[in-house]
Amino acid sequence: MNYREEACAFAPVNIAIVKYWGKRNKILNLPVTDSLSLSLKVGTTTSLREGKEKDEIELNGKIVAPESSFYQRTVRFLDLVRPHPHFFFTLKTKNDIPTAAGIASSASGFAALTLAVNKFFQLDLTKKELSCLARRGSGSACRSIYPGFVRWQAGKLKDGSDSYAKPISDTWSDLRMGAILLSEEEKPVSSREAMARSVATSPLYPFWPTLVLQDMKKIVKSIRTKDFALFGQTAEHNALAMHATMHTAFPPVFYWLEKTVEVIQRVLHARQDGLQLFLTMHAGPNVKLLFLKKDESEVKKLFPQLLPLEIAWS
Amino acid sequence: MNYREEACAFAPVNIAIVKYWGKRNKILNLPVTDSLSLSLKVGTTTSLREGKEKDEIELNGKIVAPESSFYQRTVRFLDLVRPHPHFFFTLKTKNDIPTAAGIASSASGFAALTLAVNKFFQLDLTKKELSCLARRGSGSACRSIYPGFVRWQAGKLKDGSDSYAKPISDTWSDLRMGAILLSEEEKPVSSREAMARSVATSPLYPFWPTLVLQDMKKIVKSIRTKDFALFGQTAEHNALAMHATMHTAFPPVFYWLEKTVEVIQRVLHARQDGLQLFLTMHAGPNVKLLFLKKDESEVKKLFPQLLPLEIAWS
Repeated sequence: MNYREEACAFAPVNIAIVKYWGKRNKILNLPVTDSLSLSLKVGTTTSLREGKEKDEIELNGKIVAPESSFYQRTVRFLDLVRPHPHFFFTLKTKNDIPTAAGIASSASGFAALTLAVNKFFQLDLTKKELSCLARRGSGSACRSIYPGFVRWQAGKLKDGSDSYAKPISDTWSDLRMGAILLSEEEKPVSSREAMARSVATSPLYPFWPTLVLQDMKKIVKSIRTKDFALFGQTAEHNALAMHATMHTAFPPVFYWLEKTVEVIQRVLHARQDGLQLFLTMHAGPNVKLLFLKKDESEVKKLFPQLLPLEIAWS
Repeated sequence: MNYREEACAFAPVNIAIVKYWGKRNKILNLPVTDSLSLSLKVGTTTSLREGKEKDEIELNGKIVAPESSFYQRTVRFLDLVRPHPHFFFTLKTKNDIPTAAGIASSASGFAALTLAVNKFFQLDLTKKELSCLARRGSGSACRSIYPGFVRWQAGKLKDGSDSYAKPISDTWSDLRMGAILLSEEEKPVSSREAMARSVATSPLYPFWPTLVLQDMKKIVKSIRTKDFALFGQTAEHNALAMHATMHTAFPPVFYWLEKTVEVIQRVLHARQDGLQLFLTMHAGPNVKLLFLKKDESEVKKLFPQLLPLEIAWS
């Protein structure tokens, strides 16, 4: 097999607007429902070289311990693409945003690694194949192959070959996103575990697929018609419904901090005062805000700590 | 019509374990689902006399303004029992607990008023009739006619004559309840409005009746078998699912304060450490704790501000 000396690739972070929550196949990362996201300008850059004796992984300039779950997940992914069992990689990866801080870096990480692998071995994979491969590393990574709005179709096939992301051609240049980072600590429960526990134990989870079906229709419509109220309301509801499946899991997964509730309350009050401001949340304590360009200065006044999340359009 | 000079009656506060959330008829207060509660030793005492010219209502020693919703709801209820339109009442009512502070005083209030009316006019209503009449004042008041565990059967008839509460004969002497009062302020949104808005706008609400059906089976089983883990887990899940329908309503009803989340987190951590402690919440910011007698001192150590809620057994 031919391969280059080094290959380097970037993939964006994506923020889910309609959430990926629940797997029908845990090995292949096949989801129960479709999901939809927005890709950001920030993300992960990963370079790949041939290594010696064992895989070596560097994350943000620091060697990653082989005992860590990060190392082990990455190695399991590399196992899918090794030309033979004794081929090792030296991998350097760098995130523009804090790891595991509620802004999904595993998605951009596995997407960047997929793109780097494609270059490294000169595989010339199609976008569909790249999306499927990235999905194997982390489900939502399949969406980080594209900029802008991206829809991951759940698919029906057992082998997962119809479970990949597709870009949505619409752009929305007035749309703005920002993050309120309340905690950069590692989460007490991983998203993976939170998802698995919600699916297995929340009495609300059986209703989730029907909800997503409804939300997906609304979001797609809102993007097409630029109906921001519908967009924000649906995104917010979808995120809070996802947290509801965690709150009603057993044992419950409760990511919310006191500050999370303070931000939620402030968003709701601002909306009562007429500001078109909505929130979404990942499986974590941090809050992301959705608003329009015209309200940018108003929102920044209200949340001086707002970290702008610039959307990458194609 | 004969009537006494004065009649006085007491009815207990009841704490819902499986919540009443959603009406199929707003005039008659007919619920969508069954619900189940525990009656406390505290409650409301109401005395009734004939009045002059207009209804006069005194709440906790203070005259209630005719413009207030409390006055108007009470007068509407009295309209159901007035012998003729020019018969007025003088009503004195006293709560053992703060009004509208997340511990439902409207339930004990309308139940006490119903019992007082029954005495005043010497109506000799059956328990079933008393429960139906109390329900007209406030849905959950129909449960405050009995001590201990009480189940309100939703009923199916349009006139509501099969929608009343029945006592559950099982007692559970080791069961303990306590309240963490975080706010005694009037709630920004009334429970009635929160319920109506959740039913009308939450995409989660359509699933609520199915959830309650499951929860009711579990709770009844847990009471029969004294399975406290099942009891607590189901009560907690039911309350959090109810709040989820509020969080996903539009506009959202968000009663949780920062302190609410702090208490929830502390309960979850205590449980991780092995303490059998569960929570339930009314439509408000306050948290109620469920635990067993054996853990009483442990729970008080963890929550020094705990207000014991003594259960009234028959």
